[in-house]
Amino acid sequence: MERRGLLIILSSPSGAGKSTLARSLRDWDPTIRFSVSATTRAPRVGEQDGREYYFVTEEEFRRMVKDGEMLEHARVFGNYYGSPHEPVEKSISIGQDVLFDIDWQGADQIARSSLRDNVLSIFILPPSIRELRRRLIQRGQDSDDVIETRMAKSWDEISHWKGYDYVLVNDDVTETQERLRAIVTAERLRLTRQPGVGLHVTKLQQEFEEVG
Amino acid sequence: MERRGLLIILSSPSGAGKSTLARSLRDWDPTIRFSVSATTRAPRVGEQDGREYYFVTEEEFRRMVKDGEMLEHARVFGNYYGSPHEPVEKSISIGQDVLFDIDWQGADQIARSSLRDNVLSIFILPPSIRELRRRLIQRGQDSDDVIETRMAKSWDEISHWKGYDYVLVNDDVTETQERLRAIVTAERLRLTRQPGVGLHVTKLQQEFEEVG
Repeated sequence: MERRGLLIILSSPSGAGKSTLARSLRDWDPTIRFSVSATTRAPRVGEQDGREYYFVTEEEFRRMVKDGEMLEHARVFGNYYGSPHEPVEKSISIGQDVLFDIDWQGADQIARSSLRDNVLSIFILPPSIRELRRRLIQRGQDSDDVIETRMAKSWDEISHWKGYDYVLVNDDVTETQERLRAIVTAERLRLTRQPGVGLHVTKLQQEFEEVG
Repeated sequence: MERRGLLIILSSPSGAGKSTLARSLRDWDPTIRFSVSATTRAPRVGEQDGREYYFVTEEEFRRMVKDGEMLEHARVFGNYYGSPHEPVEKSISIGQDVLFDIDWQGADQIARSSLRDNVLSIFILPPSIRELRRRLIQRGQDSDDVIETRMAKSWDEISHWKGYDYVLVNDDVTETQERLRAIVTAERLRLTRQPGVGLHVTKLQQEFEEVG
């Protein structure tokens, strides 16, 4: 019997290193897939439907929410974003882990969804606020205004650290990567995650009765 | 704030590789200490009180059990064996993990003791009964009679696999060692095991209020 995959949730304030950690986790185990969100915002140049996002109309998005097809959803700057249930269910039913790069509100919704037993949630903390700001400036993708907005939001995100299974302080990225891998390796070995062990024990029992 | 240490319980039938795994875990992290049992049996040549065992009289052993000083105890071939509470409490209070190489009955008693919140229990299964017998014969420390007794007891031990947090099928010992290390690494990172994270978040909050 195949184990069901995990919903691996990574949350952190911007700049704590979450995206790097997510990519490194998938490089380590390419069977892990990123959850693809649905959104009502327009595709940007180079974005492909079903790869970066599922691009849907607002009407379709609302229908999906109403029909319970979203594990979690939120409205951000006038656009809707959400994680459709069906592709996740499809992956975990064949033993594939699905990685979610979402904020505490999304994590909280998934932790109360029908797939809650398969959730493994990890919160990444920065070593310091100064370091968080330094990383946001250093990556050079945001204007000063956006950095200030991200910093203002970061405390809100950090303040929800208690709702997670594991917490990692991302001081040294190599060490944090190793710890993240250890967490995923360990969680897959939990008794409750290994339906195949029951079969193995049954085989041992049969063998024991035959050969003692 | 220092985290409290874990009570790492390893159980398995004889020959599944538990002792090798226990030693390898301590080689990997020498801060992990083996729990030293108390026993009423006589010391063998070379055994030292407080190292292999605490050697106590039967009267003293009974008093310890009566006064609740044993985390678990059992009578085996007319001798008493047990794990005294106090040295374990002393270790875990300074953040040292303590390793227990005990059977399912001891594991079960510890899981119901006052230290149950600090327990991490792992069951090691053999890949097959043939392999279990082969390993018992190969290590050459037991007579044929003792091997048969061990084999007869092995099914009793295996049948209690469901009471553990984690299960490892010890097919390839190097892989099992890595998995065991991953489990210990991960368990130390669980939110509930890291009292220090609360302080770190308080520091982040202060810093956030000062420098934004």
